[in-house]
Amino acid sequence: MNISHWTTGKKIVHLDFKGAPPRMSYLQKLIPLIADLGADGLLLEYEDMFPYDGELKVLQATDHPPYSPEEIKMIQDMAKSSGLEVIPLVQTFGHLEFVLKHRAFWELREVGFCLGTLNPHREQSVKLLLDMVHQVLELHPDIKCLHIGADEVYLLGQGEESRRWLSTPGQDIHQLFLGHVTKVAKSIRATWPHLSLVIWDDMLRNMSPDTLKDSGLVNLVQPMLWDYSPSLDVEGTVCLMEKYRSAGLCQMWAASSFKGSTHVSACVTPTQRHVDNHLQWLQVAAAVPDGVELQGIAITGWQRYDHLSVLCELLPVGLPSLASCLETLRCGSFSEEAQRNVTEALGISSVEVEGLLCSPCSGGTSPYPGQRLAELVVELTALLQSEELSFVDTNMYVKGWFTPYHRRRKVVNPLILQQIQHQATTLLARLEPKVEAATQEMRHLFPDSTAQEWIQQHVSAVLEPLQSLLEDVQVTIRGMLPSNAHPLPAGQ
Amino acid sequence: MNISHWTTGKKIVHLDFKGAPPRMSYLQKLIPLIADLGADGLLLEYEDMFPYDGELKVLQATDHPPYSPEEIKMIQDMAKSSGLEVIPLVQTFGHLEFVLKHRAFWELREVGFCLGTLNPHREQSVKLLLDMVHQVLELHPDIKCLHIGADEVYLLGQGEESRRWLSTPGQDIHQLFLGHVTKVAKSIRATWPHLSLVIWDDMLRNMSPDTLKDSGLVNLVQPMLWDYSPSLDVEGTVCLMEKYRSAGLCQMWAASSFKGSTHVSACVTPTQRHVDNHLQWLQVAAAVPDGVELQGIAITGWQRYDHLSVLCELLPVGLPSLASCLETLRCGSFSEEAQRNVTEALGISSVEVEGLLCSPCSGGTSPYPGQRLAELVVELTALLQSEELSFVDTNMYVKGWFTPYHRRRKVVNPLILQQIQHQATTLLARLEPKVEAATQEMRHLFPDSTAQEWIQQHVSAVLEPLQSLLEDVQVTIRGMLPSNAHPLPAGQ
Repeated sequence: MNISHWTTGKKIVHLDFKGAPPRMSYLQKLIPLIADLGADGLLLEYEDMFPYDGELKVLQATDHPPYSPEEIKMIQDMAKSSGLEVIPLVQTFGHLEFVLKHRAFWELREVGFCLGTLNPHREQSVKLLLDMVHQVLELHPDIKCLHIGADEVYLLGQGEESRRWLSTPGQDIHQLFLGHVTKVAKSIRATWPHLSLVIWDDMLRNMSPDTLKDSGLVNLVQPMLWDYSPSLDVEGTVCLMEKYRSAGLCQMWAASSFKGSTHVSACVTPTQRHVDNHLQWLQVAAAVPDGVELQGIAITGWQRYDHLSVLCELLPVGLPSLASCLETLRCGSFSEEAQRNVTEALGISSVEVEGLLCSPCSGGTSPYPGQRLAELVVELTALLQSEELSFVDTNMYVKGWFTPYHRRRKVVNPLILQQIQHQATTLLARLEPKVEAATQEMRHLFPDSTAQEWIQQHVSAVLEPLQSLLEDVQVTIRGMLPSNAHPLPAGQ
Repeated sequence: MNISHWTTGKKIVHLDFKGAPPRMSYLQKLIPLIADLGADGLLLEYEDMFPYDGELKVLQATDHPPYSPEEIKMIQDMAKSSGLEVIPLVQTFGHLEFVLKHRAFWELREVGFCLGTLNPHREQSVKLLLDMVHQVLELHPDIKCLHIGADEVYLLGQGEESRRWLSTPGQDIHQLFLGHVTKVAKSIRATWPHLSLVIWDDMLRNMSPDTLKDSGLVNLVQPMLWDYSPSLDVEGTVCLMEKYRSAGLCQMWAASSFKGSTHVSACVTPTQRHVDNHLQWLQVAAAVPDGVELQGIAITGWQRYDHLSVLCELLPVGLPSLASCLETLRCGSFSEEAQRNVTEALGISSVEVEGLLCSPCSGGTSPYPGQRLAELVVELTALLQSEELSFVDTNMYVKGWFTPYHRRRKVVNPLILQQIQHQATTLLARLEPKVEAATQEMRHLFPDSTAQEWIQQHVSAVLEPLQSLLEDVQVTIRGMLPSNAHPLPAGQ
């Protein structure tokens, strides 16, 4: 197998606006940077950041305003100026949490307790999707390609209407999925006949070539094979490509990841993990079966695992990884030269964002857009995960003299309380300024609500118990002392 | 150095009533058992369990009634019937937290923020102590020996009056300590001239032989050298004995430990650790300097590190260790034979209380008094420390979809909530019955308030966050579902 650089098709960078939409001023710096790093296009996942209108206005984010129609146009102009193609992504089956969470659409859930999956049997469901797609396409008049999602359609077939439908002999769950996707894709094509339509491939993986062939998908949609693992199964992926080809789905895409696929609550992006994922994809590309027309690769950067999960790695923290992944595709390896290209392009001292703190920036280079935030997040994350920050649960004085029992009864030795107070105050004095600095920096690049959410998700579980401990100490200590008692100097 | 069994003096078992006073019905079983295991006497530390009367009535425990005068008499009768001498312990300098926490005695603190140490300059302080001692001695008419504590007199010399006293040339902190102890001991002797008085030795350790000689302690008090470490410094301890002897303090005691000295919040007693401590003391005993009259050894079993710290190992959990320590002293080693003697005496399968669960009881033997509680505490402690019980902090679904942010906003995917609900319910179903069983068993042997306190100190920090998580899940899940939504069967 010959491994060389990525030659087959476009390199599309996924910008996931879920929960942490960059401010326009940040996008103005980001988009040219992404082009400079070697991308050919952007896969824009607006989700609730799109200015849905009319009956769909309820879909707009409420914590922060969505992008305005003018801003949507500006984003496309920025992309165009940088020579980047734009591919919008609109979910049309699963992961519709941002739609189905609204009471107005509760009745369109496949099953009541699953927020992501649409009931495909209702006319209203299809109408809703087409309204969404139409509104998105109206604000993207120049696009050639649309991603219609359709991944992870959890619990499909478990709704009442689906179970009835499936009870008809000869009808199975694969047909249920394919029927809906085909219907939606055909409706879109009826209005925009020249639009390429892309879907995620995971729901197709277990289907037979015959099922796929009979579905009507051929010449209608292009599957995007996604795999974000550093140990991606090359042979299995090549076989999958061969299956899709044999079913007539010759045009297909790859999807890798540069961030947001390590674990659901990760804050810091490990570059090597994502480079390894791309090295595997390069092996796949080198072994693409005859007849497969690989359109390109979408380099995904997830901002959440789904609409209701925590924010994972913020975009600035993932940029060294993105640059490294693009450079790996360009060079065919992550050689020392490739690494040097990355550090020079971003003006950083290490391809790992965690390394930025250890070694000083090479003199004279300015930080990449968002680098200060990346550094603060790395620093804060390290502190939050450090052993000393588990103080509330593990400190001897707390475990021995200031348990829930003592905090309720408020009969505690002030001498011990003073020890706890001293240690908790010292920890908070280290933690709180870092939290404040990260919050401030986040607010420059993202909406205030994103900063607030990130703090509540990644910091509060550590910070709040420490703050509450200290408050209890202060209240309790006063109740145990004569009014004329002078506290000891700290540390005695 | 010849090591043989303990030949020098009495083996006194310390019963610490702080916080976990055994019910009379339990003492009726315990005291004969302790005698059977080879003890010669009991060191009774009543603290707030003594029925102090008159102006001192405020010193009585309030969470549970103290022993009545009749019960104090019964305890002595039980000891007498079992051939055990009784030595009461009354603190007279440090560790007076149970006295000085009361507002009525706040002004007698050496320093306001230290609850343990008495201001030795006030006449009222000495009067208080003598009242306490008199009341205790009145209810112990037959005793020959009284322990007057005086260990760990923290912050002595830092009070205003002490600082004034110390500013007089020629007066130092050692004299301040010795002066108070001598005054108290002389006052006791004035009324009970034949009583032996014992003090803990830690405050004497750094004093010179001359300071000790000049103090008036000689022929007044007997120091009790305490060291609970499994790696006790034999040579250093022998040197200390030699120093006390050279100062004229020839009569002295040793103090080892069978429980309550591992760490402040320990629940399970490691037998070997305490046997090792006794093996070290045997080496000291084999090297006792000429002229030293070793009166015996107090085998301490601490119930708390101090009046305001958490309950540590309960007495039933420490009984295999106590039996092992006594047998080690009797045999001069912890040979296989000694271990067999212990397992046979208690009818258990292992000298380590943690081993009781693993191997079944040898057939036909009945459990030792409190064995069921010991087993439940071991089981519960293991579960509380298990990795799965850190669920609230480490579970992926909780960290990813049910952070403080989500719990406040109550917008959560019910499908994820159901996973959390299932796992939390399963954990609680394992934990809660064990907590209930341990509580019930504890109530048979100790006051209800002891059981309640133990749970709040050792279980609540794990149990309550789990219960609160589950409550939040249940409230949130209802708000996210159409009224006709049927939850999935658990585990799906």
